[in-house]
Amino acid sequence: MKSYKELSRKELQRLQQQLSKAYEDAKGKGLQLDMSRGKPSAAQLDMEMDFMDVLVSSSDYKTAAGLDTRNYGAMDGIPEAKELMAQMMGVASADQVVVCGNASLTIMYDMVSWCMTHGVLGNTPWCKLDKVKFLCPVPGYDRHFSITEHFGIEMITVPMTEDGPDMDTVEKLVAEDESIKGIWCVPKYSNPQGYSYSDETVRRFAALKPAAKDFRIFWDNAYAIHHLYEDGQHEILDILSECEKAGNPDLVYEIASTSKVTFAGGGISAFAASKANVEQLKKFLTIQTIGFDKINQLRHVRYFKNLDGLKAHMRKHAEIMRPKFEAVLKVLNEELGGLDIAEWTEPRGGYFISFESMPGCAKKIVLKCKEAGVVLTGAGATFPYKNDPNDSNIRLAPTYPAPEELAAATDLFVLCVKLVTVEALLEAKGDEQEVKPAV
Amino acid sequence: MKSYKELSRKELQRLQQQLSKAYEDAKGKGLQLDMSRGKPSAAQLDMEMDFMDVLVSSSDYKTAAGLDTRNYGAMDGIPEAKELMAQMMGVASADQVVVCGNASLTIMYDMVSWCMTHGVLGNTPWCKLDKVKFLCPVPGYDRHFSITEHFGIEMITVPMTEDGPDMDTVEKLVAEDESIKGIWCVPKYSNPQGYSYSDETVRRFAALKPAAKDFRIFWDNAYAIHHLYEDGQHEILDILSECEKAGNPDLVYEIASTSKVTFAGGGISAFAASKANVEQLKKFLTIQTIGFDKINQLRHVRYFKNLDGLKAHMRKHAEIMRPKFEAVLKVLNEELGGLDIAEWTEPRGGYFISFESMPGCAKKIVLKCKEAGVVLTGAGATFPYKNDPNDSNIRLAPTYPAPEELAAATDLFVLCVKLVTVEALLEAKGDEQEVKPAV
Repeated sequence: MKSYKELSRKELQRLQQQLSKAYEDAKGKGLQLDMSRGKPSAAQLDMEMDFMDVLVSSSDYKTAAGLDTRNYGAMDGIPEAKELMAQMMGVASADQVVVCGNASLTIMYDMVSWCMTHGVLGNTPWCKLDKVKFLCPVPGYDRHFSITEHFGIEMITVPMTEDGPDMDTVEKLVAEDESIKGIWCVPKYSNPQGYSYSDETVRRFAALKPAAKDFRIFWDNAYAIHHLYEDGQHEILDILSECEKAGNPDLVYEIASTSKVTFAGGGISAFAASKANVEQLKKFLTIQTIGFDKINQLRHVRYFKNLDGLKAHMRKHAEIMRPKFEAVLKVLNEELGGLDIAEWTEPRGGYFISFESMPGCAKKIVLKCKEAGVVLTGAGATFPYKNDPNDSNIRLAPTYPAPEELAAATDLFVLCVKLVTVEALLEAKGDEQEVKPAV
Repeated sequence: MKSYKELSRKELQRLQQQLSKAYEDAKGKGLQLDMSRGKPSAAQLDMEMDFMDVLVSSSDYKTAAGLDTRNYGAMDGIPEAKELMAQMMGVASADQVVVCGNASLTIMYDMVSWCMTHGVLGNTPWCKLDKVKFLCPVPGYDRHFSITEHFGIEMITVPMTEDGPDMDTVEKLVAEDESIKGIWCVPKYSNPQGYSYSDETVRRFAALKPAAKDFRIFWDNAYAIHHLYEDGQHEILDILSECEKAGNPDLVYEIASTSKVTFAGGGISAFAASKANVEQLKKFLTIQTIGFDKINQLRHVRYFKNLDGLKAHMRKHAEIMRPKFEAVLKVLNEELGGLDIAEWTEPRGGYFISFESMPGCAKKIVLKCKEAGVVLTGAGATFPYKNDPNDSNIRLAPTYPAPEELAAATDLFVLCVKLVTVEALLEAKGDEQEVKPAV
């Protein structure tokens, strides 16, 4: 296919007419599709319903140690659930793990909130400081950025590479600025690119020398076992072990959940950290709760048993999700390949595809899609303050729609990409040479 | 029975010898009993196991409006659960209710935390103020006091009466001190007394004129449907409606949970507030979570259906709990009645009995019990900073032990009360008249 950038003004105008007509036709179809959020599909949810049968009236509700999960106790999680979550997160010991409620997002919010009101291991609470800053690899997860924005924490963007955040920048910034207190990371199958941090990146994180003693890496291991393929699965180093080896045991808070393993909102979450961190965070939790839902913890343990059980289960998810990713990628490749107007990632896991349009086009593409009935994640959402300086990144979430809807949604999406891009190219050409078309 | 206070020194000494011997005998029995926390008993938990059968693999997981509870959405709770919790709390409209996670304690912690970091409806965040104070009716719930202590909030005690907190004091303090930002209340079957606020108390709360615009009543309606008896059930006015009538709609945050209706830690919680408060608190929640466990919300709704379902269920709880309360009260009355050395409440609902020893005796009684194998709530726990100025209040929690254990525990308790009291009386007499006994 010929690059759009090589097209003449006339060719572009002709193309614009064709695309506009196609877009108006598409609009007439009355689509109502949603590719905006990383939601499991009905097929995924239906697939795991026997999960609901492992704890019924006739079941035994006691842990191996004899604790009744229907009563108070075990504030930091039942031992079996700690072990399961340690395995899922790839953490060396269950002692490093605290199992919490239904959402890792809540843990991350609470962690930042605790840092604000109480401070990290004896350091000044952040709310008493004039300035607190976070590093935000971009594009990234919008809900991370919402938390830091909510607390008035200044966000500094760091470019992502296929190997993780640009570590030269990270190292330099944290070393020179004591007000930088944290960084948001999705180290495996990153949201939205599907990139995973290389061993070198993880080791450089573990070896960071931040000016701030209370700097923490917020290691959101959201997609630890969320592979789309059997081959070429990404694995990352255990950041906790690496931090310990590097003499920085307390540098990281790791977080994960089963929201996209069992049920979205009906799963369990956990964090893992060094002994000193776990001790402090448990102190806060002791004030905040008598204990989390241990019945759901036990349900997870009884159903999955161990990492092998989790992996077998995630293969079934992958079978449902993989064709969707491939359907979207097929349309992108067939329709946009060679046009030289966009780039996109081809993830091996996770929940998203990251799409880069030409600069200045993302908002218009998302708006055009919306006007024709396809909802995408808001353009800019993958950046702090929803501000994508290039206005080029769009996060595609192919998991929720049914396959046939997905094809229709992606067809519309590429149509909008082409149309908006052609209009942008025409506008650019107009700036270059103000030639009146012959009437 | 003769009042201990009328006994002569000699009589007291003889009594002390008898009691000491009985205590040493009791110690030898190797008791291991726990009356420390308001935990449901195994019988209560076993009684409600069919609750676990309402959502199994073959069930429909959609709300009436068609929302799949297994997926993201309905951040503020499914409509059916809002309605159920509104009925349970005695709140006029489900629109005032947000259904949350497994613990009302977490809601209360979060509310205080939000006030600290973000402030109430546009007012200065409390963490930016030099001084923040809370009123604490005493004796009260230790975990309330832990939250305010955790945030460095100064706690001022207010005496409780059978009709609720001493409202003259409350009105005066909140009117004159702008740094008083809140008050902890358990308005129905209070922890630990089992008192319920009179209509007048509720109305005076609703009509408060606090100096602080961001003063909030933390209305922990923990025992809204937790009656022990069919007759003489306590009911309280709906504080939200009363606040609205009084022109103070935003004055109160109400909180409740089903931790002691279904499972401790496996229930659902909710808060209710005015429109303006709910809007603000939902804004915070939107950052903190994508949504709570809606499957458990649906389980509650399907099982109980409505307030009648809840009430029928709570009658079964009462049948298990009532004999336990009565067993403890019987021992207290038989063994301590007329001795003029202690007072205790006779609750019609809730989870506790409040016991008042002679001043200076509570810690010693709790310690003596512990040394003989019976764990009570720590003396002082019912006061801010664990500091009971009279050292007289002890919270008894009769729900968890089996009936035969309870009898043994209470027998030991009254023995310790008598022994410690006699020793205190002897010491007091010693101070009065330094008469050397004839050798």
